[in-house]
Amino acid sequence: MAFRYYRTIRFHETDAAGVVYFANVLTLCHEAYEAALQTAPIDPKRFFSAQNEYPVPIVHAQADYFMPMFAGDAIAITLMPKQLSPHSYEVRYTLDYQQPGPSLKPAESERPLATALTQHVCISKATRRKHPIDDRLTDWLIELAAPVVPND
Amino acid sequence: MAFRYYRTIRFHETDAAGVVYFANVLTLCHEAYEAALQTAPIDPKRFFSAQNEYPVPIVHAQADYFMPMFAGDAIAITLMPKQLSPHSYEVRYTLDYQQPGPSLKPAESERPLATALTQHVCISKATRRKHPIDDRLTDWLIELAAPVVPND
Amino acid sequence: MAFRYYRTIRFHETDAAGVVYFANVLTLCHEAYEAALQTAPIDPKRFFSAQNEYPVPIVHAQADYFMPMFAGDAIAITLMPKQLSPHSYEVRYTLDYQQPGPSLKPAESERPLATALTQHVCISKATRRKHPIDDRLTDWLIELAAPVVPND
Amino acid sequence: MAFRYYRTIRFHETDAAGVVYFANVLTLCHEAYEAALQTAPIDPKRFFSAQNEYPVPIVHAQADYFMPMFAGDAIAITLMPKQLSPHSYEVRYTLDYQQPGPSLKPAESERPLATALTQHVCISKATRRKHPIDDRLTDWLIELAAPVVPND
Repeated sequence: MAFRYYRTIRFHETDAAGVVYFANVLTLCHEAYEAALQTAPIDPKRFFSAQNEYPVPIVHAQADYFMPMFAGDAIAITLMPKQLSPHSYEVRYTLDYQQPGPSLKPAESERPLATALTQHVCISKATRRKHPIDDRLTDWLIELAAPVVPND
Repeated sequence: MAFRYYRTIRFHETDAAGVVYFANVLTLCHEAYEAALQTAPIDPKRFFSAQNEYPVPIVHAQADYFMPMFAGDAIAITLMPKQLSPHSYEVRYTLDYQQPGPSLKPAESERPLATALTQHVCISKATRRKHPIDDRLTDWLIELAAPVVPND
Repeated sequence: MAFRYYRTIRFHETDAAGVVYFANVLTLCHEAYEAALQTAPIDPKRFFSAQNEYPVPIVHAQADYFMPMFAGDAIAITLMPKQLSPHSYEVRYTLDYQQPGPSLKPAESERPLATALTQHVCISKATRRKHPIDDRLTDWLIELAAPVVPND
Repeated sequence: MAFRYYRTIRFHETDAAGVVYFANVLTLCHEAYEAALQTAPIDPKRFFSAQNEYPVPIVHAQADYFMPMFAGDAIAITLMPKQLSPHSYEVRYTLDYQQPGPSLKPAESERPLATALTQHVCISKATRRKHPIDDRLTDWLIELAAPVVPND
């Protein structure tokens, strides 16, 4: 089941053009990824620590920008992870406005505000070589990658 | 009535020492301030815009740091504004861990994680001189400055 | 001629994993882009302002990460722009360690620390439609896109 | 002798009001502090690491804002440290425009753009108690605290 993260755009995320600074869109996505990991549950303090023996650093990131975002905008980030190999996975993100009403469901007909992708490879910190991702992370990937219609 | 803002510390807010970067504590406080203004309601997109004819920039900020904060930490920021003059006000912030349980009330006996203060002066953008703060902001200050004693 | 930007990694750019936060690599690249524009000369205050009638927002960004970067690391960002259409261009970035010695030229045999790409489309702010990029920007693109082969 | 750090304001440091976001002024000051420490020489990668057994975290920070700063502005940050006790010191910062000409000396008659202060206490990471600052840091404090006229 896809994971959805709700967020209000804050002033410090904007720049002098009046809208969210482009690199901060990836930061917003990583926040959604952190929130999703906490459902596993995976403890961000340990997982993202320099002491994690088997970290899963980002090796590639990209974003496409369709609409500007402003301070105060209420957005929803939908996150879809997918395992790529025993030691790697990717996460796809779609950013939409939150919808009014109880469902908070983004309108399906609308173009997203932005989309993004991060790719992650698990390594052994000691050897700097690839390492299989652990069971908890594998289970998390299976659960969140289940074939649910995006934005639903 | 004091305003309380709930927030999970995110990875990008930490630094290589493993904890929240000192200047980001002020950013967290400003987020709480933005959320509090939205209750007025004051629209952040307009209020913080370069087009606002009567902006209220920060002229002084300070923070005291008592305990480190880590990615994943669930914190509560309690905000107490106070009008200082017809054209200025300050906001005091106390950062605590969120407490488990329905009340989410920080333990009263514990020392805060950090405290902070911002001072704001309303100016006319045209003249760069002081300008009285408007009624909506004055009402907001009166309401949030009411003598409720949280975290105390 | 390619443009090269020199920079020391700062503490606030790192995260709790001890290295530069992934999205900040794109921020470093944008700094190089700003420095390169200033050689045109294009004034960043006007160019990146909300008042610019013909802004050139980023519509796509991506980065590949090969090696971690640490606080204090002295890096060089080599920037190669290329016009894509009358109203768009892209900029490619290569991040390397600075080399000792007068040339400060990154070692040619080494793998870069990271590479990145940003794509930009000029629009009319009034209509939100594509708009031809102006002569100064076109000249800048021609000059910096000239076939010099640094880092290769 | 006071230490001076030169810096161009970058787009990501600004916000939707068109100027440097208030908390980023403290980040700029910390960059100057890092650059000054490197003259000791103190290695930022080790000094600011989670593995440093005797870190010197910031316990208090403050800033006063006199003039807005814009993307592209060339500023100079003058840094004056002062030892407060065997285990603590403070650093005062003055931000001015860089001056044209070979001296790059800020005009003495002008009001600074901003001033700031950080206070630092050395602790033992094992015990979380105060710990004397080491000789290299003490020497650095002595050298940079020498009575030179500020901004000169």
